[in-house]
Amino acid sequence: MRALLLFRLDLSGTSAVEESIHPIDPREPIVRATDLGVNRGDGVFETAVVRGGRPQALEAHLTRLERSAALMELPAPRRDLWRAAVLRAAAAVSLPGVLEEGEIASVKFVMTRGDEFDQGGPTGWVLGFAGSDPSAVRMRGVRAVVLDRGYRHDVMQTAPWLLQGAKSLAYAVNQAALREAARRGADDVIFVSADGFVLEGPRSTLIARIDGELVTPPAELGVLPGTTQADAFSGITDVPTRIGVLMRDDLDRADALWLCSSTRGAVPVGQLDGAERFIDHDLTVRMNAALDARED
Amino acid sequence: MRALLLFRLDLSGTSAVEESIHPIDPREPIVRATDLGVNRGDGVFETAVVRGGRPQALEAHLTRLERSAALMELPAPRRDLWRAAVLRAAAAVSLPGVLEEGEIASVKFVMTRGDEFDQGGPTGWVLGFAGSDPSAVRMRGVRAVVLDRGYRHDVMQTAPWLLQGAKSLAYAVNQAALREAARRGADDVIFVSADGFVLEGPRSTLIARIDGELVTPPAELGVLPGTTQADAFSGITDVPTRIGVLMRDDLDRADALWLCSSTRGAVPVGQLDGAERFIDHDLTVRMNAALDARED
Repeated sequence: MRALLLFRLDLSGTSAVEESIHPIDPREPIVRATDLGVNRGDGVFETAVVRGGRPQALEAHLTRLERSAALMELPAPRRDLWRAAVLRAAAAVSLPGVLEEGEIASVKFVMTRGDEFDQGGPTGWVLGFAGSDPSAVRMRGVRAVVLDRGYRHDVMQTAPWLLQGAKSLAYAVNQAALREAARRGADDVIFVSADGFVLEGPRSTLIARIDGELVTPPAELGVLPGTTQADAFSGITDVPTRIGVLMRDDLDRADALWLCSSTRGAVPVGQLDGAERFIDHDLTVRMNAALDARED
Repeated sequence: MRALLLFRLDLSGTSAVEESIHPIDPREPIVRATDLGVNRGDGVFETAVVRGGRPQALEAHLTRLERSAALMELPAPRRDLWRAAVLRAAAAVSLPGVLEEGEIASVKFVMTRGDEFDQGGPTGWVLGFAGSDPSAVRMRGVRAVVLDRGYRHDVMQTAPWLLQGAKSLAYAVNQAALREAARRGADDVIFVSADGFVLEGPRSTLIARIDGELVTPPAELGVLPGTTQADAFSGITDVPTRIGVLMRDDLDRADALWLCSSTRGAVPVGQLDGAERFIDHDLTVRMNAALDARED
């Protein structure tokens, strides 16, 4: 991956939107040593993929940023400013000559609680970056392992301070789970709750096809509402879709599995805990065609 | 709290120690938008209090930094460099005129996994800062609430990717727990496991006096080995001490409770879940006298 551009946002006030967006060199430091974002993982983020010069599912990402901020009791993001900054970044990374062969652009936007000592309010930035085109992984699929996320399925209700369901900067566990997957010869993870409810991936939403239906776990289990999964469901009109609870055994019962994320779209699971799994190439292609064709 | 000084560390190579320590303005940004520390909470830290110009329990803190790094599969910290930088920061913040009345100095040292895109290795810095003198809180104690940490007591063994026991930058849950405490009219938290084992505070180690013994929970439960608690145990020779499992009910059975941390020392719990608790001022004073008198 390559950093392409960086905008620092002035979140302190009521300045006009364009005056609150400050382009800086992405190799230059932007976060203080006293920022709660880097000291506590105390902040939220979103990543939108860029197609045709625009960030896809931008409004859904902004809504989820607001949701994460509310779960973490952060100030509500100023939606007009974040929207403008992401749109501007998406347009800039789409200019001719920016991307190299085999790359696609994405925009990541981050809001932290700000400086621990200064009480100056949130820190924000928008990063445009180039990643690998997902065409190949959509074909070959990923090898996933099932890992325990350690929490019961209902902690979002019983212990909201555990911040399940918030897309936070405190993602060290997700990184460690991906290292555990690599140790087991895999590339990705499907988390289950301590009491056996299927959840999500560390950076993706799960879709399982069971009894002819596409099923994804409900947000009440502390999983992120998937922006890509939602649009995949909308884009496939000839297969019934629903949000529903899946237990660990349902992963074995499913005849196809996908992990959905903004940057890669719908990626089939070709191996689960070492066992080969059927890849439905036709449905995968149709899901991703619908995803890639989104206008916003 | 006030930032006093900041050293950026060059962790990339084998340069001489002093050439790897770079003083910068603590108000200037030091972390890139592409650093895994701020994007994933993917890093480790320690905080040592400064007394008499020196960081207390420095070797214990360095050992715990190494332990956290190992748990997170980070490169082993270069101990000579970290030691030198913390010593230099402690000396600098102890110069006449740096601290104001009612302040004490501490040194926080942080190592992240480094830039996600550049693969240049860890990012490191040392921050000297001024905090409140803990004399008052050691007298009046804190009001604590018991909160579920959501994990079973044995996840450090069954699910090491949950990173329990690592002092990581992904501490958003600890911050959220402290907000929950505030909502309940309290200032601090004692975490218990989902199955009722007493753990620790979000920023402290628990000591309970039960049946005439001082008891602290074992590191195997995924709690941090407490540097301050260890020295408090060493400093009190007339009361038996031990490491042992405590269950939720033992908190009610205990006739005194303390939360120990580097910056505050041993702070008594004067209220637990709204009920007044006995504060043993004499033993608290003696513990803190031993702690404050440590030479290293």
